[in-house]
Amino acid sequence: MRGLVYGGPGNRSWTEIADPVITDPRDAVIRVDTVTVCGTDLHILGGDVPAVASGRVLGHEAVGTVVETGSGVSSLAEGDRVLASCISACGICRYCRQGAYGQCLGGGGWILGHLIDGVQSEYARIPYADLSTYKLPEQVSDESAVLLADILPTSYEVGVLNGQVQPGDTVVVVGAGPIGLAAVLTARLYSPAHIVVIDKAEARLQAAKLFGADTTVLAGTQDPLAAVQALTKGLGADVVMEAVGFPETFELCTTLVRPGGRIANIGVHGKPATLHLEDLWIRNVTITTGLVDTSSTPRLLDMLVAGQLDLDHMITHRFGFDDFMQAYDVFADAARSGALKVVVSR
Amino acid sequence: MRGLVYGGPGNRSWTEIADPVITDPRDAVIRVDTVTVCGTDLHILGGDVPAVASGRVLGHEAVGTVVETGSGVSSLAEGDRVLASCISACGICRYCRQGAYGQCLGGGGWILGHLIDGVQSEYARIPYADLSTYKLPEQVSDESAVLLADILPTSYEVGVLNGQVQPGDTVVVVGAGPIGLAAVLTARLYSPAHIVVIDKAEARLQAAKLFGADTTVLAGTQDPLAAVQALTKGLGADVVMEAVGFPETFELCTTLVRPGGRIANIGVHGKPATLHLEDLWIRNVTITTGLVDTSSTPRLLDMLVAGQLDLDHMITHRFGFDDFMQAYDVFADAARSGALKVVVSR
Amino acid sequence: MRGLVYGGPGNRSWTEIADPVITDPRDAVIRVDTVTVCGTDLHILGGDVPAVASGRVLGHEAVGTVVETGSGVSSLAEGDRVLASCISACGICRYCRQGAYGQCLGGGGWILGHLIDGVQSEYARIPYADLSTYKLPEQVSDESAVLLADILPTSYEVGVLNGQVQPGDTVVVVGAGPIGLAAVLTARLYSPAHIVVIDKAEARLQAAKLFGADTTVLAGTQDPLAAVQALTKGLGADVVMEAVGFPETFELCTTLVRPGGRIANIGVHGKPATLHLEDLWIRNVTITTGLVDTSSTPRLLDMLVAGQLDLDHMITHRFGFDDFMQAYDVFADAARSGALKVVVSR
Amino acid sequence: MRGLVYGGPGNRSWTEIADPVITDPRDAVIRVDTVTVCGTDLHILGGDVPAVASGRVLGHEAVGTVVETGSGVSSLAEGDRVLASCISACGICRYCRQGAYGQCLGGGGWILGHLIDGVQSEYARIPYADLSTYKLPEQVSDESAVLLADILPTSYEVGVLNGQVQPGDTVVVVGAGPIGLAAVLTARLYSPAHIVVIDKAEARLQAAKLFGADTTVLAGTQDPLAAVQALTKGLGADVVMEAVGFPETFELCTTLVRPGGRIANIGVHGKPATLHLEDLWIRNVTITTGLVDTSSTPRLLDMLVAGQLDLDHMITHRFGFDDFMQAYDVFADAARSGALKVVVSR
Repeated sequence: MRGLVYGGPGNRSWTEIADPVITDPRDAVIRVDTVTVCGTDLHILGGDVPAVASGRVLGHEAVGTVVETGSGVSSLAEGDRVLASCISACGICRYCRQGAYGQCLGGGGWILGHLIDGVQSEYARIPYADLSTYKLPEQVSDESAVLLADILPTSYEVGVLNGQVQPGDTVVVVGAGPIGLAAVLTARLYSPAHIVVIDKAEARLQAAKLFGADTTVLAGTQDPLAAVQALTKGLGADVVMEAVGFPETFELCTTLVRPGGRIANIGVHGKPATLHLEDLWIRNVTITTGLVDTSSTPRLLDMLVAGQLDLDHMITHRFGFDDFMQAYDVFADAARSGALKVVVSR
Repeated sequence: MRGLVYGGPGNRSWTEIADPVITDPRDAVIRVDTVTVCGTDLHILGGDVPAVASGRVLGHEAVGTVVETGSGVSSLAEGDRVLASCISACGICRYCRQGAYGQCLGGGGWILGHLIDGVQSEYARIPYADLSTYKLPEQVSDESAVLLADILPTSYEVGVLNGQVQPGDTVVVVGAGPIGLAAVLTARLYSPAHIVVIDKAEARLQAAKLFGADTTVLAGTQDPLAAVQALTKGLGADVVMEAVGFPETFELCTTLVRPGGRIANIGVHGKPATLHLEDLWIRNVTITTGLVDTSSTPRLLDMLVAGQLDLDHMITHRFGFDDFMQAYDVFADAARSGALKVVVSR
Repeated sequence: MRGLVYGGPGNRSWTEIADPVITDPRDAVIRVDTVTVCGTDLHILGGDVPAVASGRVLGHEAVGTVVETGSGVSSLAEGDRVLASCISACGICRYCRQGAYGQCLGGGGWILGHLIDGVQSEYARIPYADLSTYKLPEQVSDESAVLLADILPTSYEVGVLNGQVQPGDTVVVVGAGPIGLAAVLTARLYSPAHIVVIDKAEARLQAAKLFGADTTVLAGTQDPLAAVQALTKGLGADVVMEAVGFPETFELCTTLVRPGGRIANIGVHGKPATLHLEDLWIRNVTITTGLVDTSSTPRLLDMLVAGQLDLDHMITHRFGFDDFMQAYDVFADAARSGALKVVVSR
Repeated sequence: MRGLVYGGPGNRSWTEIADPVITDPRDAVIRVDTVTVCGTDLHILGGDVPAVASGRVLGHEAVGTVVETGSGVSSLAEGDRVLASCISACGICRYCRQGAYGQCLGGGGWILGHLIDGVQSEYARIPYADLSTYKLPEQVSDESAVLLADILPTSYEVGVLNGQVQPGDTVVVVGAGPIGLAAVLTARLYSPAHIVVIDKAEARLQAAKLFGADTTVLAGTQDPLAAVQALTKGLGADVVMEAVGFPETFELCTTLVRPGGRIANIGVHGKPATLHLEDLWIRNVTITTGLVDTSSTPRLLDMLVAGQLDLDHMITHRFGFDDFMQAYDVFADAARSGALKVVVSR
């Protein structure tokens, strides 16, 4: 079969590789039907994630069909159509028992396309298959489902739930990439009064409006603090979510939050930020960080079936497996291509 | 009457001043019976709190007797023995309605000995007296009660409650000054399995043991991280409280917490810290800051009556009003005097 | 001036009475501009609330204009347009300090039109005015605001917040009177996947659909349990709210909830119910009861301003003060008149 | 091997039965080292649990040694000393994913000694062994550990955690059998100011004092309501736990709770109770029920190791396997024998 193989920094190829096989009784093998590319994959290609070895198949977001299960898999059968989550869960360790799968101590967590071969390939091995896949109801399309492999639960759990968005809140989302947009979409589930989105690209702010932002701020041109204060009688936002991953954007968040408010970091950071404790110590703020657990995936699937999540605007480009390299090109050049999520399907 | 007057950086005097008078219907005037000095008073004297004007009477922790009440005060009468809390509360603004008195928008918050004259004087005016004083039951001594004006609710609310200490937890307290020791004492109310205290002074670590620490780490000599990992199978502490107020101690806290754990900052900071988001973004940590609200004061008083808070070791030195200047000297020279809290009484 | 006076069971009159006066420094007097009638007023007239003395002016939901304030009132001025809440709050007792104003121990709670004269009159005295009224922004109409005096916060706090409605939930509301309909409206703020409403009147079920119900069950004709099981794979509802007040409707609720689910009682009950502990002990259910606190009123006002609460369908009939007796007639005969809320305005 | 076999109502025998075998890859077989008898076993023998078939081996609380594991068991090995929990967990269903193992939809829950053969036998099969057993540290004795199979987590989760006991609370426990006593012991972990225990047997009240009750009330002789009001200025208890299982004791609980308080039902009920909604609707009470999940077992084990749980007084009688029938006799005749928990060991 073929897969998208990391060949060290800057190097990727869609190439012939060995078929995956069951190596543990709790494994399943799926035929990959629909898969997508994540910003993290670009970070890996940039050499920022040294744990990824050369030769690794990338990818951690897929919809597929079960073709084989290990003897210890009890809830899946050949032919089941499943979502393969970005997080694998041993189900036994103290973190998994609490649903904190992202912190799994038993060999799970984010391993696909990172510590083991991922899902950007025609077939893939999924460890701990009972807890790491989700059977898909007929009504849910592959394209909607694949967005629940990572970006929807990430923005919902690490942004909206950690941020404890409440009805009537003023919510700020810094960064209008796919994760920030998904944060807008899932924040709306809690009926905040205002959602402010800040980004430096006008096109992304336009997208944010489609997802439910009611105020947008063009960074560099407009003043985020003034915009937030105007909406909150000078007090600051109830919840601020960081969806970029740079020191400056995190530091911006800490200036926009009201006393008693919450800052939920979703962004993946490569450098330290400055925490202005000389201002913040007295302001009753809460800052959270987190890797997604995907414990919300079943609930998000229910909401998808109930028509509560309108994901139509998220997928901007579609490719066949033969054009996998081009999918990466388009996704990597989002500024020009306007790509949000690109999907690759059989 | 006499009061302890701030005369600009480095300058204080116990001197004759005008008697306080009711200036608002919600005011009360108390005769001050017992009062104490806070580390914050030393910061003010160091010139670190520019909002404090020269000529200001210092002090925000007292027990006294009501001598006069404004027409709008409904729950107090002349002769009532009361705790005057470090926080005043208008009771009407959005923060007060939620018990977040420290963030009062209506003219309260930390104002005593800061924006208005404080309680280190023979008599004192207490604004918003209904919500800013607490009637004392007979069983409670002045000396115990005065510790509930600031350090007990501060360590309990900003440390233990923000930190969400739970039975069986491993808790770390960085800093064994009065606030850190009160954090140990009040953390014990939740039955953590281990309380580790870190300080650079051996005497303070000895004090920590009296308050309930079971492991102590002498900073500079012993390795905090190794000590915490030994107790937690390498995982890190469930809750870490910062009770010092320096960038390095805060940064230490972020290295000691387990994935999914909490860092509760209690310390008063004058400088920014470095937040290592490149490590922390993936670790599901929660960082909280806060000024005390004193919303827990009634409950702490109930616990004091029920014999649940043993405060005997907290007060190390006692003075009369005539020796107020000496009380400051002793408190300021804690390293040599061994002072924890000093009280000044009629 | 004139007021609606209770003259003992079955007896009410719109008649000349004495003007209200300030009797406590914390009082305000308002000119009543818009007022409504509550099902509770009908209970009083039925003789079911013996604490209400003959001669009492009824009513606990009004919008008015401040005409006088006591010396202890600090946040209101003559001419302010305010919502007079059904709950008065002393602001000092242990319950008020937690925002549980409905349980006020200091003389507040539900007293208007119950233990003191109410607001169905041309002018009214409002005790504890700072905490018992809410200044209205210009954008909010009298008619919308008056619905926030009781039914909106009641359904939101006692139903939706006690029931802990979450995105994706299946929610059942038993009873589609004004409170039940407001529960549907405010439950939607949390984006449940399904809202099922059960009532015995087809007209009210039609109204429920306008407010956001997606499944309706005609009691007596359709099977509520079957309807709920069909939506939940046989498991039961996540949250069930009782908005009627009869033993049978409460007992119905306990059969519709899933293991681990919540039953939020909103209804006012006159008789005990049977609690089938022989079934429920093992099912991890939570049952809550409550009188409204109106602590959510400021937030509901914010949501009203932000356009998040569509109250258009709630007011079905409008009257002038001269027709106050007729307003009662129409409201009492809701089965024939189709009345939901009737408002009486100057 | 031998086991304690249920032979229909009133009928039990310690008799020769077939050895257990692995029937599913997730099974383990343990050699039973220490086992105890539960009040539920007596209910079964009374014929109150018709789901238990004649021929069933009873018992759901044991400590044993792993002798064999299925191919799908990953965390256990032959020779491991383990606690066999009263609750089995599939680990995959929606309830298990939330740690609500008692409500397992995948074939787990309370099945041992109920729907499948239990652990009152020389060897036993434990389904879903990874999630249904807990490896025991060396420091923990069999006798302490076996109390964590059911009564400690039951009283802690269903009583103390559902009741949300907080420092300074007044807590009432109705019923001083083993579960009620364990509720006293585990409530103390949260430092309530007062623990009141009500029972009709003086000997059990004496035991309650050993476990930490500070006020005891002899039902039938002393007035529980008067005792609680005396401690709470007439307000009622913060938390009331029902640990008996009769309608009258449940109804008593609802009269002892303060407005805004919580009633946590732990008792196993066979009959409905009367819920006085005509009083309770207005009082903001929360009532919870629940079967234990044993999700707290790892944490309770940590506390046992840390010396935080003093279980010494709980085990009153000890037997060898040959005297299993006598162990039942003594336990069933607790009024005369004074038995709390009886253990049977190899």
